Amino acid sequence: MTGELKRNLSSKNKPDQGLVQVFTGEGKGKTSAAMGTVIRALGHGLKVFIVFFMKGEYPYGERNILCKLPNVTLVSFGQETFVDPRHIKLEQIEQAGQALMVARQAILSGDYNLVVLDEINVATAFKLIPVEDVIRLIQEKPKHVELILTGRLADPRIIEIADLVTEMVKIKHPFDKGISARRGIEY
Amino acid sequence: MTGELKRNLSSKNKPDQGLVQVFTGEGKGKTSAAMGTVIRALGHGLKVFIVFFMKGEYPYGERNILCKLPNVTLVSFGQETFVDPRHIKLEQIEQAGQALMVARQAILSGDYNLVVLDEINVATAFKLIPVEDVIRLIQEKPKHVELILTGRLADPRIIEIADLVTEMVKIKHPFDKGISARRGIEY
Repeated sequence: MTGELKRNLSSKNKPDQGLVQVFTGEGKGKTSAAMGTVIRALGHGLKVFIVFFMKGEYPYGERNILCKLPNVTLVSFGQETFVDPRHIKLEQIEQAGQALMVARQAILSGDYNLVVLDEINVATAFKLIPVEDVIRLIQEKPKHVELILTGRLADPRIIEIADLVTEMVKIKHPFDKGISARRGIEY
Repeated sequence: MTGELKRNLSSKNKPDQGLVQVFTGEGKGKTSAAMGTVIRALGHGLKVFIVFFMKGEYPYGERNILCKLPNVTLVSFGQETFVDPRHIKLEQIEQAGQALMVARQAILSGDYNLVVLDEINVATAFKLIPVEDVIRLIQEKPKHVELILTGRLADPRIIEIADLVTEMVKIKHPFDKGISARRGIEY
């Protein structure tokens, strides 16, 4: 990345060309990378909207900080329990549908430079929302709006139309060794 | 991740067992994932120390936000120009050595729950600092201190002793299409 950045340092293009980024894969760091990008954007005075599709009201640490910062709006859908794709509940579909509706309003308003759709890939993979609706939203977004879609199992059609796709590949994970999720680090 | 998290939600283990995390690979999101983890940790009241090994004084957006938050200390080494591994300068070695010394003090003090060593993998790959010194530091760290090492080209010996390793794999990147780095998004 350093070499590419260097080559481009001279061009002071502002983010009037919003791209579509995808963080997917089984490895750690997808939501974290999105949140790091949010902090960077806020540091430049950009406006950010974040939709958590499947996090429910679980007290993820980043919210405690983000909700105190200016220029960033967080909305959260889904339930405290995790979704089991073999036993989808009606309210889970309703929650995901509402999340997509709110995301759609935020994106199409053009008021935000960056909109994060956290775990939307899982919501489409589990068929809580139709992938066609996500594709249409991407196609209809105002040019200047940057989108970040996170979550495992990104649909190939989303990857096809995205500009930047990163797969987080798990090389080694402490859960494999039986170490539990730790507050402040994993959630 | 959701399934593993669910299984572990009942165990309220605090991060008294600090692990060693590595974000490496050619894909986007390594530093961003570290910064997202920092925000999460701060949200839980943890103390964080961040050493930028190779970012120089370049005004990355995340610093504007992080430097205003409590419980986080940022220090930055290296120069504004990027390091060319074929033409290493003495001051680049000196800067990286100072960064490692400051990181070492922060880690061994035990005062911080999380210490981020940003781009340290590149610093070792370019032989600005000896990988043996990094390995020794990992081995000597207080048990409760979590470490995150970022950057391309992570040394196999670091990967070997790390607990959690994620490779960011570039599936698709807009630079490939000739789109430049954009302020607020890439830096």
